[in-house]
Amino acid sequence: MTVPVLVGVDWGTTNARAYVLAADGAILAQTEEQAGAALGIMHIKGADFSGALERLLAALPAEVAPELPILLSGMITSRQGWVETAYVDCPASFADVADAAERQTIEDRTLIFAPGLAYTDATGVHDVMRGEELQILGLLAMAGGDGDGVYCLPGTHSKWAWTAGGRIDRFSTVMTGEVYGALCNHTILGRLMGARSHHAEAFAQGASRARAGGYVLHDIFAARTEGLFERLRPDTLAAYLSGLLIGHEVAAMVARLDAGAPITVIGGAALAERYGTVLKAAGYQPTLRSDPVVARGQLELAKAMGAI
Amino acid sequence: MTVPVLVGVDWGTTNARAYVLAADGAILAQTEEQAGAALGIMHIKGADFSGALERLLAALPAEVAPELPILLSGMITSRQGWVETAYVDCPASFADVADAAERQTIEDRTLIFAPGLAYTDATGVHDVMRGEELQILGLLAMAGGDGDGVYCLPGTHSKWAWTAGGRIDRFSTVMTGEVYGALCNHTILGRLMGARSHHAEAFAQGASRARAGGYVLHDIFAARTEGLFERLRPDTLAAYLSGLLIGHEVAAMVARLDAGAPITVIGGAALAERYGTVLKAAGYQPTLRSDPVVARGQLELAKAMGAI
Repeated sequence: MTVPVLVGVDWGTTNARAYVLAADGAILAQTEEQAGAALGIMHIKGADFSGALERLLAALPAEVAPELPILLSGMITSRQGWVETAYVDCPASFADVADAAERQTIEDRTLIFAPGLAYTDATGVHDVMRGEELQILGLLAMAGGDGDGVYCLPGTHSKWAWTAGGRIDRFSTVMTGEVYGALCNHTILGRLMGARSHHAEAFAQGASRARAGGYVLHDIFAARTEGLFERLRPDTLAAYLSGLLIGHEVAAMVARLDAGAPITVIGGAALAERYGTVLKAAGYQPTLRSDPVVARGQLELAKAMGAI
Repeated sequence: MTVPVLVGVDWGTTNARAYVLAADGAILAQTEEQAGAALGIMHIKGADFSGALERLLAALPAEVAPELPILLSGMITSRQGWVETAYVDCPASFADVADAAERQTIEDRTLIFAPGLAYTDATGVHDVMRGEELQILGLLAMAGGDGDGVYCLPGTHSKWAWTAGGRIDRFSTVMTGEVYGALCNHTILGRLMGARSHHAEAFAQGASRARAGGYVLHDIFAARTEGLFERLRPDTLAAYLSGLLIGHEVAAMVARLDAGAPITVIGGAALAERYGTVLKAAGYQPTLRSDPVVARGQLELAKAMGAI
């Protein structure tokens, strides 16, 4: 019989997911996508995180024994979350992250709050992440210490991280997803848009435009003009913009890489696939991962802390 | 006695201005800024442009004789405006623009609707302007055919135009102002902002960051992190972002220029001054023009049409 040793909770701004984990990393149970959709930290009223956690755990197929430690990562550990934890400076290993995690007993449960990561670039400007580091460290653990390279985690705030010697060496955040949303909802370009469904050809056209090396805020205006001149249909404009913004993000990031460097994209299947397409067009052979690698990172972190 | 020969109306999305002009280009009268603030085409209810024009003319210090021709330029000639005119392809001279202007008699007034300009780049992608071309052509006329160079017209959609032989050769639009607004009002960065007053030091800091050559959508996220870490005060964040976006726009555009190329910035005094600062830091000696040069362009266009 496989015994659960930890519950990992990946708790972000818009949703939350719980995983029941065995010592070998096997996921014994997990919540359905919709169970955590109303539990992202922005949805929690009156800071009742404890109540939200119980609701999330209740959505698991089996009861969670009260003595099972629960490790929480993501924006739940930010200032807007439940317990704010420190940022660990890069380069950062599992041991560094474990040192900064916070263990608390709240309503008879043992809760571990993961820290975030910070990186300060050569000019003294900071960057931060909360949650993605356990996805990357989880994948590195699954590769048995191997697998150094570049990790791309697309999203509202896309993260690109470089690992070396099993540590996260440095990273860079690009506000692609949030800018895409603001442009769709609050600009003259968005007002030309019809349905925002995916359209592979328009997406590829936008990505190709980005590869030409123009300035992104010019290309965005040009997208509007192409819509105005009916060279792009209203229902393909959003996909074109998506290709344009992902294309510019990828172009800016791969400019720092050697040709053919190993890149792993970690994210939901549809979005990972789009980044994969753009990376392939730029001459890379990315590995796409859409499985919940964060759970393995949470498990290894709990082990590194001696919590399990 | 100086005789009025034309009324020029510079009629945009958010406001409208009227100028009473003499044959030598002298501005005999003009509306106050607030008179046209409610008359931009987005404010006009029920497409009553004729009524709006009469209200604007009534705001002039002296009555406009019914037989005086009125030349209208700007978004008033777009699909969302009063009379939609064509786009003239670049390179474009006064004569080309005059050929495409539309003369109409509406309620006993002679109205001339200026066309817009279009430019198609080497990859077949279009760009458009409506109104700015008369500012540039007006300045060229004032310089007596001299003054070829680069013109920067900052705003919601900043225009950069190259002139040669007294014609507008090509141009490029950058969505700086509108993206600035969307970021301030609809993103996680905007939520950290306090008062959005100008702050010269933070503006310069943002512009300097842009000059370092990073990717703009990474720098925008970094601005939010600097705010989070309290390295930028809430009341300086908007100025920092402004410097960052103007800095990236200028960097992208001057990359196409020879060092020391002549650049003229045409715009409101405060905004022109900010672009001037960034251009100087990039090694250029821009000329700043905040006088209503559009009126001269309107006059010369009416002359080229034989309308006056």
